[in-house]
Amino acid sequence: MEGHPYSPKDLNLPGFVPNFLPPSTILGVFAAAFAIVFSVSWILPGLVSKTTKLERLLVCWFTITGLIHIIVEGYFAFSPDFYKDKTGFYLAEIWKEYSKGDSRYASFDSAIVSVEAVTAVIEGPACLLAAYAIATRKSYRYVLQLAISLGQFYGLVIYYITAILEGDHFAVSPLYYYAYYIGANSPWGFIPFLIIIRCWRKICQSEGRNKIKTK
Amino acid sequence: MEGHPYSPKDLNLPGFVPNFLPPSTILGVFAAAFAIVFSVSWILPGLVSKTTKLERLLVCWFTITGLIHIIVEGYFAFSPDFYKDKTGFYLAEIWKEYSKGDSRYASFDSAIVSVEAVTAVIEGPACLLAAYAIATRKSYRYVLQLAISLGQFYGLVIYYITAILEGDHFAVSPLYYYAYYIGANSPWGFIPFLIIIRCWRKICQSEGRNKIKTK
Repeated sequence: MEGHPYSPKDLNLPGFVPNFLPPSTILGVFAAAFAIVFSVSWILPGLVSKTTKLERLLVCWFTITGLIHIIVEGYFAFSPDFYKDKTGFYLAEIWKEYSKGDSRYASFDSAIVSVEAVTAVIEGPACLLAAYAIATRKSYRYVLQLAISLGQFYGLVIYYITAILEGDHFAVSPLYYYAYYIGANSPWGFIPFLIIIRCWRKICQSEGRNKIKTK
Repeated sequence: MEGHPYSPKDLNLPGFVPNFLPPSTILGVFAAAFAIVFSVSWILPGLVSKTTKLERLLVCWFTITGLIHIIVEGYFAFSPDFYKDKTGFYLAEIWKEYSKGDSRYASFDSAIVSVEAVTAVIEGPACLLAAYAIATRKSYRYVLQLAISLGQFYGLVIYYITAILEGDHFAVSPLYYYAYYIGANSPWGFIPFLIIIRCWRKICQSEGRNKIKTK
């Protein structure tokens, strides 16, 4: 049995193959992809319709989070053997690296896989639809953003509660715990939360105005 | 080690105490409570405001599901030792009985407990608020119903995907599998689904009308 760097040490991962790429390269490729997607999704809505800066930021958010859900999390949810990858495939490299912050990915924990599958298959495509709906000002744009953000928030809550219930001992060190397990997930804690509040208000205002006008 | 009736047989439940009440009594008490809550929540909204039959049915649904979330599921989420109960306490009896259809309750599986905790603590009180909001026609009534129903639906999806990923072998027999694991959960499959569709449409209509009127 080959060794692995993950916590807990007695985790059984037969056939584990270590990372080929250093963390800096993995993060660098991710940052480059992020910058490209951000730029394109910032420019495109402006060509289609009149959008405010906030709306364009939201288009960027939903495009980026949607692509991460579909590509990065989608790969994970259907690749139980990613930790055996011998080709240096980038998406396997990401999850081998991230598992240092949460080994439940390497062990393909069923709660993690369930949440990731829902996120990849349902929320991912819905995010891209939301980006389109915001850019083209569809009447379902608020309710769709709300539904997605509630789902992302629910998934994150389950992610952390299951970890706490099982002892919260899945990170290699405090560095990985805070950088990966807490840090890398933090955007999905506060951004969906802000979007929920905004869309909730927009929907209630619209409902309230409607009530007055139809009287 | 005392024996238990659950599946799989090698599940370790030290100190297990069998049910005191027969299934018919457990179900009978539940049915009686259901009838009382249904009647009260059917009559009350009519005294407060003009509500349609559909709205009164929705008040009944959110009152009943809210009380089940808070009382029945709330008890479970914070009682890891319910299977040791020696007093014949009704809520422990419910879960001892239901565990015949899904032993992950008896074993206090972390995915189950996470979903049940969110359901009991967040969705339960939100359901009672929704019943109130529908009866008094608050402007947030649709968005609140939608948010709750999405949460209930998400929880159910995680409930079933985790079971499938772990082999779906948690029921004592096909009878318990279909009666408890599938049957008892089925209302939370289709009712939230219908409510999501209805509220989604109401919100989009309102948004659409508003757009025209404010032009």
